[in-house]
Amino acid sequence: MELNGIYQSIQDDLSQVKESLRSIIKVNFPWLSEQLGYVVHSGGKGIRPALTLLSGKFYQYDLKYLLPMAVSVELMHTATLIHDDAIDKSMSRRGRATIYKLWGEEPAILLGDYLFAKAGEFVSDTRCPRVIKLFSQTLATISSGELNQFFSAYNLNQTREQYFKKISGKTASLFSLATESGAILSEAPEKSIKILKDYGYYLGIAFQIVDDILDFIGTEEELGKPVGSDLAQGTLTLPAMLLLERYPEDNPVKRIFENRKDRDNIKQAIELIRNSPIVDQCYTVASEYSVRACQSLNGLPENNSRRALFALAEYVVARKK
Amino acid sequence: MELNGIYQSIQDDLSQVKESLRSIIKVNFPWLSEQLGYVVHSGGKGIRPALTLLSGKFYQYDLKYLLPMAVSVELMHTATLIHDDAIDKSMSRRGRATIYKLWGEEPAILLGDYLFAKAGEFVSDTRCPRVIKLFSQTLATISSGELNQFFSAYNLNQTREQYFKKISGKTASLFSLATESGAILSEAPEKSIKILKDYGYYLGIAFQIVDDILDFIGTEEELGKPVGSDLAQGTLTLPAMLLLERYPEDNPVKRIFENRKDRDNIKQAIELIRNSPIVDQCYTVASEYSVRACQSLNGLPENNSRRALFALAEYVVARKK
Repeated sequence: MELNGIYQSIQDDLSQVKESLRSIIKVNFPWLSEQLGYVVHSGGKGIRPALTLLSGKFYQYDLKYLLPMAVSVELMHTATLIHDDAIDKSMSRRGRATIYKLWGEEPAILLGDYLFAKAGEFVSDTRCPRVIKLFSQTLATISSGELNQFFSAYNLNQTREQYFKKISGKTASLFSLATESGAILSEAPEKSIKILKDYGYYLGIAFQIVDDILDFIGTEEELGKPVGSDLAQGTLTLPAMLLLERYPEDNPVKRIFENRKDRDNIKQAIELIRNSPIVDQCYTVASEYSVRACQSLNGLPENNSRRALFALAEYVVARKK
Repeated sequence: MELNGIYQSIQDDLSQVKESLRSIIKVNFPWLSEQLGYVVHSGGKGIRPALTLLSGKFYQYDLKYLLPMAVSVELMHTATLIHDDAIDKSMSRRGRATIYKLWGEEPAILLGDYLFAKAGEFVSDTRCPRVIKLFSQTLATISSGELNQFFSAYNLNQTREQYFKKISGKTASLFSLATESGAILSEAPEKSIKILKDYGYYLGIAFQIVDDILDFIGTEEELGKPVGSDLAQGTLTLPAMLLLERYPEDNPVKRIFENRKDRDNIKQAIELIRNSPIVDQCYTVASEYSVRACQSLNGLPENNSRRALFALAEYVVARKK
């Protein structure tokens, strides 16, 4: 199913999310306004705000609180991407030049900070100390996870467990904030809050594994950035780990991590992974998490939103970008 | 009066602030823990948390809420300094190497983000949506103010008004968050909240003008960083503006901003400012704001805290570092 179909029941409210996002462009500083305009029109998939709205549909759906929460989740996501791009010195994202490339690293740092602040303003409009605290804890988890990733770059000795810890911090934590906060703000019972939190977590893990697969098997056009970016940045993801296990002696990943970014080695790693069962093996792991996400939904009332969350779990694995 | 004397009535509670700050070191990632340890023992003056506690002393002083607020204000300050140092590529602060110098710019970005998040966690413990929103708005003001400063670097055509807007954003906003939040959390009446907010604002302006003066007249030992850092980074402060007005034709500031960081020109600018009435003129402006801060306190009940706030306004102008 396409995202538009999945989002059908929350289409109007998602439009309001976009409108709120656009409203932050109106500021007094011309540079800031220009950068915000660029950022806000970047065309993300909107999965995180959709998760908040869909998760709010099982009990008391009140847009007064769910809307600022959804906006806040998207802004936090955007801010972390801007900082990540500055850290990784990434030139393109979603097929466009990054803020880092266009304006440099200093404005990227400050613009990210500004967006964290705006995210904080929106989340405070929920007037719910519990989700506000969750929001801050999630940002702490994400940034410490990114620090962990930074310091473990170009390290070949990483376990599967460390990989899951990493993607849990950098991706699943924000997905589960999106769903858990939607549940809390709609006054769901604790059991349902836990269900939606777990769903978000498993979905986030599946999403990131697929991201890590696509980084090897996608095209530059689909990805909106060069293929093999993770390897080029010294980030060891599941496909590369499996390749290392497969060829422990002579291995392009090993060479990349030892001699650093060599384009020929990156190409070779991509080819080896594409022409091996590794891709299927990784998809199997991603699917397991997607299934776990769906299974956790069983305890929730049957409705349109539950069907949408099921469909989203399928979409996340099937997507090509 | 020395800071210790001024802080006397809140000494024990300030120790609790320090203890809470130290508590954040305990995390699962060794690198993060090491960096946090370094940051937390940096020996700042603690003016901002002291302002929160002192401002809370006029009505219902409840440490349960004032303590996390004071910690949060200090953490936000620390986080902005870490990002500023990465942006300005500063090598030293408070007589020690910066995080940027020690670990590089990527960890500096992420560590700053992590500290913003921890600040957000502490502020959410106040359980007061109003101060949580203020907190986020202040971070937005600070980061957009820093962006403004970044894009106006090496620009000679800046008005006095732009200077005040800049220091209002980067310094006074956090001072007034510190005082206003203390007032709100102690359930002060609106009139007193306004008084303490204004006090914090004027104090912050005075503080920053003195900072900008010290950057020219201090010693490297007192400053904990090289003399003339602002000029070297293309930041036009009040003393440099007055020098430009005094010698509009041939001027070392002009040469620095046109040819960029030339150490001889910086030395010459420092000498010219030191041996002119400019220093006194700037101190007069700073004193005016310090007096305004004190005047605004007249509407508050007379007590130890009010005396401490008066003394702090004097200290801020008289300090040598």
